[in-house]
Amino acid sequence: MDKLIITAALTGAEVTREQQPALPLTPDEIARAAEECAQAGASIVHVHARRPDGTPTQDKAIYAEIIEKIRARCDVIVQVSTGGAVGMTAAERLAPVELRPEMATLSMGSVNFGDDVFLNHPADMAAFLAAMKEFRVRPEFEIFDAGMLHSLQRWLKQGVVDGPVHVDLVLGVPGAMAGTPESLMFLRSQLPPEATWTVAGIGAAQLPLAAMAIALGGHVRVGFEDNVWYRKGELATSNAQLVARVARIAGEMERPVATPDEAREILGIMR
Amino acid sequence: MDKLIITAALTGAEVTREQQPALPLTPDEIARAAEECAQAGASIVHVHARRPDGTPTQDKAIYAEIIEKIRARCDVIVQVSTGGAVGMTAAERLAPVELRPEMATLSMGSVNFGDDVFLNHPADMAAFLAAMKEFRVRPEFEIFDAGMLHSLQRWLKQGVVDGPVHVDLVLGVPGAMAGTPESLMFLRSQLPPEATWTVAGIGAAQLPLAAMAIALGGHVRVGFEDNVWYRKGELATSNAQLVARVARIAGEMERPVATPDEAREILGIMR
Amino acid sequence: MDKLIITAALTGAEVTREQQPALPLTPDEIARAAEECAQAGASIVHVHARRPDGTPTQDKAIYAEIIEKIRARCDVIVQVSTGGAVGMTAAERLAPVELRPEMATLSMGSVNFGDDVFLNHPADMAAFLAAMKEFRVRPEFEIFDAGMLHSLQRWLKQGVVDGPVHVDLVLGVPGAMAGTPESLMFLRSQLPPEATWTVAGIGAAQLPLAAMAIALGGHVRVGFEDNVWYRKGELATSNAQLVARVARIAGEMERPVATPDEAREILGIMR
Amino acid sequence: MDKLIITAALTGAEVTREQQPALPLTPDEIARAAEECAQAGASIVHVHARRPDGTPTQDKAIYAEIIEKIRARCDVIVQVSTGGAVGMTAAERLAPVELRPEMATLSMGSVNFGDDVFLNHPADMAAFLAAMKEFRVRPEFEIFDAGMLHSLQRWLKQGVVDGPVHVDLVLGVPGAMAGTPESLMFLRSQLPPEATWTVAGIGAAQLPLAAMAIALGGHVRVGFEDNVWYRKGELATSNAQLVARVARIAGEMERPVATPDEAREILGIMR
Ligand SMILES: [Mg+2]
Ligand SMILES: [Mg+2]
Ligand SMILES: [Zn+2]
Ligand SMILES: [Zn+2]
Ligand SMILES: [Zn+2]
Ligand SMILES: [Zn+2]
Repeated sequence: MDKLIITAALTGAEVTREQQPALPLTPDEIARAAEECAQAGASIVHVHARRPDGTPTQDKAIYAEIIEKIRARCDVIVQVSTGGAVGMTAAERLAPVELRPEMATLSMGSVNFGDDVFLNHPADMAAFLAAMKEFRVRPEFEIFDAGMLHSLQRWLKQGVVDGPVHVDLVLGVPGAMAGTPESLMFLRSQLPPEATWTVAGIGAAQLPLAAMAIALGGHVRVGFEDNVWYRKGELATSNAQLVARVARIAGEMERPVATPDEAREILGIMR
Repeated sequence: MDKLIITAALTGAEVTREQQPALPLTPDEIARAAEECAQAGASIVHVHARRPDGTPTQDKAIYAEIIEKIRARCDVIVQVSTGGAVGMTAAERLAPVELRPEMATLSMGSVNFGDDVFLNHPADMAAFLAAMKEFRVRPEFEIFDAGMLHSLQRWLKQGVVDGPVHVDLVLGVPGAMAGTPESLMFLRSQLPPEATWTVAGIGAAQLPLAAMAIALGGHVRVGFEDNVWYRKGELATSNAQLVARVARIAGEMERPVATPDEAREILGIMR
Repeated sequence: MDKLIITAALTGAEVTREQQPALPLTPDEIARAAEECAQAGASIVHVHARRPDGTPTQDKAIYAEIIEKIRARCDVIVQVSTGGAVGMTAAERLAPVELRPEMATLSMGSVNFGDDVFLNHPADMAAFLAAMKEFRVRPEFEIFDAGMLHSLQRWLKQGVVDGPVHVDLVLGVPGAMAGTPESLMFLRSQLPPEATWTVAGIGAAQLPLAAMAIALGGHVRVGFEDNVWYRKGELATSNAQLVARVARIAGEMERPVATPDEAREILGIMR
Repeated sequence: MDKLIITAALTGAEVTREQQPALPLTPDEIARAAEECAQAGASIVHVHARRPDGTPTQDKAIYAEIIEKIRARCDVIVQVSTGGAVGMTAAERLAPVELRPEMATLSMGSVNFGDDVFLNHPADMAAFLAAMKEFRVRPEFEIFDAGMLHSLQRWLKQGVVDGPVHVDLVLGVPGAMAGTPESLMFLRSQLPPEATWTVAGIGAAQLPLAAMAIALGGHVRVGFEDNVWYRKGELATSNAQLVARVARIAGEMERPVATPDEAREILGIMR
């Protein structure tokens, strides 16, 4: 079983300071949170940029500042989001990929997302993939529902994507797949050969699915983007607090936590 | 185990005469095909309207003509589609529901669909449900992926929908859930209590999933909308030919085929 | 998908003429039944010997007579049982293997079996395997419960058995695994790589599991050993009647039935 | 989700001092170990008696001494084993049940067990059940393979057993069901309604299956009977060390550990 890769999803596109007062928003805050998470055991940070007013943006300059400031502090892998926000074009969403970060997310389809639709048109998906190839960015394929894994299988079969792939199973978004052990086990049974996977449980699903992933040989994503609570009725005080708990559980379960360089090796990221 | 309800999906929104020369397009053709399918064992016909040039339409007048002509020929349950075509508004797609057909489809989310996106915005879904309640139309919930079943579970929990529900598991659309036995078994394991279900396997998945559904106590949808072939390399000669094969397999498997009135009772459709 | 191998389990060790008047018991009756089943589509016959009074026996001479008489009539693969009856020693049970039939069963563990225990001690299992290797008999591994598949996996891992293996999933014996679609799907998900498999559903499970196996790419065993009924309340008139129904369903499902030579090729049986 | 019941399986019938120097064998040692485990978070101790020479025994007097000495120290629930050892009669194995302990195990079938067969004849199982009813002992149904759960379902259906039942899923015995997450999820999907369950993973399966059970709402059994190691290459220093780790993981996962009285309430044990 590989060492455990913990991803910290620090900010997201939708969470607010009202919901989570410790949410990092500025490049400085994000870089500081990244360093704390790295110290707590994270080897990847998944980042979204925000404007000074807190609204989500795919502005390349802000992403550049975030990446630079994280790199100044620690060696954690930076994974940029290409999710963007409702209404953005594919080109806008792709902007941070041009910065050649080590990783970027690539969502494998469209799905209702709470009261909205998270649109990923097939043509846009192809454009995202082409850009990641061009800029030599390792994709993390975001899987919100079973059909998205099937679409990835089709890409593999067509040779558009070369394996082994790395996927993120995002479970518990209203409109997408349920945040249940059954969902996790089913998706796991449908993974492409040699795929590595992480699980991002939303809200109350974060902790139980993280423990299952540790036991199953998968990897774990936690952080404010997916869940702002430490326990029922008690907000987490930082992203690092959530990372540290996963690291402690992994320690009890004899699953060592990967350093960023170990994570690079597991994921096949060349520097 | 209930008697077997066979649904014939006669026309769809996308299949062309080039792909399937026997495709029924006009109200007269659709009514004739419905009658043939009813004679072959179908108790529901799932209908889409087309304009004289073959393009899809949600025109209420055309649906009215289709329904009237089917009713003149046979007692089969008419289920209208609310799927519409890319670019239609929710109001347009809802038009045939106002005709108070016995059933209508209600797609439970958004999903990539081949080279397009099949959009079902949460707000539109709520509008579709409200209309079906108002016009006393029994919904068939269309499930293209696992998350859509979860959304239906949420509606049931919220009391927005009262059970038992009837669902159609549409398996094999590129972009949605794979047309595999594993998909079928997983969705079946996640059904709401007392739900009735049918399976619509796309293309080559139609026949094996139909046989599984017969064995599992589910129901079966076949027809040109989902599959134009009788066997590999050989087009079906009619929708009824596909229905008749399912009826023969059901006969061999000691699963009697339901009449339209028996289907109404199984599905809780009041006339 | 391979062509469909139908095995006819003609007699078994326990069924009586009182339960099934058409049960073949003598070598002549068994040979005649084998020929009828071969004509109806079976490529393997699974045989048990009985004494003139109908009680089960592993007497080599009777097995020899059965095999000779079958071979005089048709080319079907003869698979002898090593199950024996309660109280027999392993050596007794092994006797027919010395006749070098093309196949023999090898039960992969112990399990309660109705009001008895079907004992297969680990040391006896090893002896059975050694004998089958010595006499160059292709084993069909009988799997009555999930743990038995695990034991086979262990043999494969230890190199005691070389793959690909052929297994028979016997589902529905009281005391063993339930005769349900869920059991079948679970065992199928746990098969060794490249394994071929057949399913023997007991009693009312025979027909639905047969249909599922046809759809899933597995093979099918039917016959009086497992089920004496044609339909609820109506006894089958012959083993061949049960075989013929499976062949008809396979025909409807576009799954051609294998000849004995095609079955030999699929199963890797050298002559 | 109920509070977590941790069972400590202190001694077993087969483990030796050579394998695990800290193995408790005498009534005094067992009672001391029980108290330590209770302090570490166990609410049930599963006990086997040994003779002074370390061989397993179902001697009622020794069980009586064990129970008395445990009760003198702490309030933990005592669950006696009825497994006995190879060659014992059902009456011998049942002896400790006559002491009216709060719980006793009832194995639901026969299965190969390493190099032996663990025999539980259907008639003996019925005798065990009758005795537990007579002496008002709460059974824990031991499930070593999928078919055993099916046998329990049959007892429930026949009304021989009243639900809700409590089962122990013993996973990883060579000859029985594999100690894998897939096994656990499958058995869990087949549980009778309202059943409570614990998982006893054997050897290296103990820790990952324990973590899964905590996440899934099940309960956990650990201890030297099932596993003598703390981690790869390092023996546990006591049963309590294994219990304490489970309690720590449960704490991290916000699943509080049950006291003995809370366990009694969850399991429906009247005193
Ligand atoms: Mg979807
Ligand atoms: Mg067993
Ligand atoms: Zn994100
Ligand atoms: Zn349609
Ligand atoms: Zn047999
Ligand atoms: Zn024990």
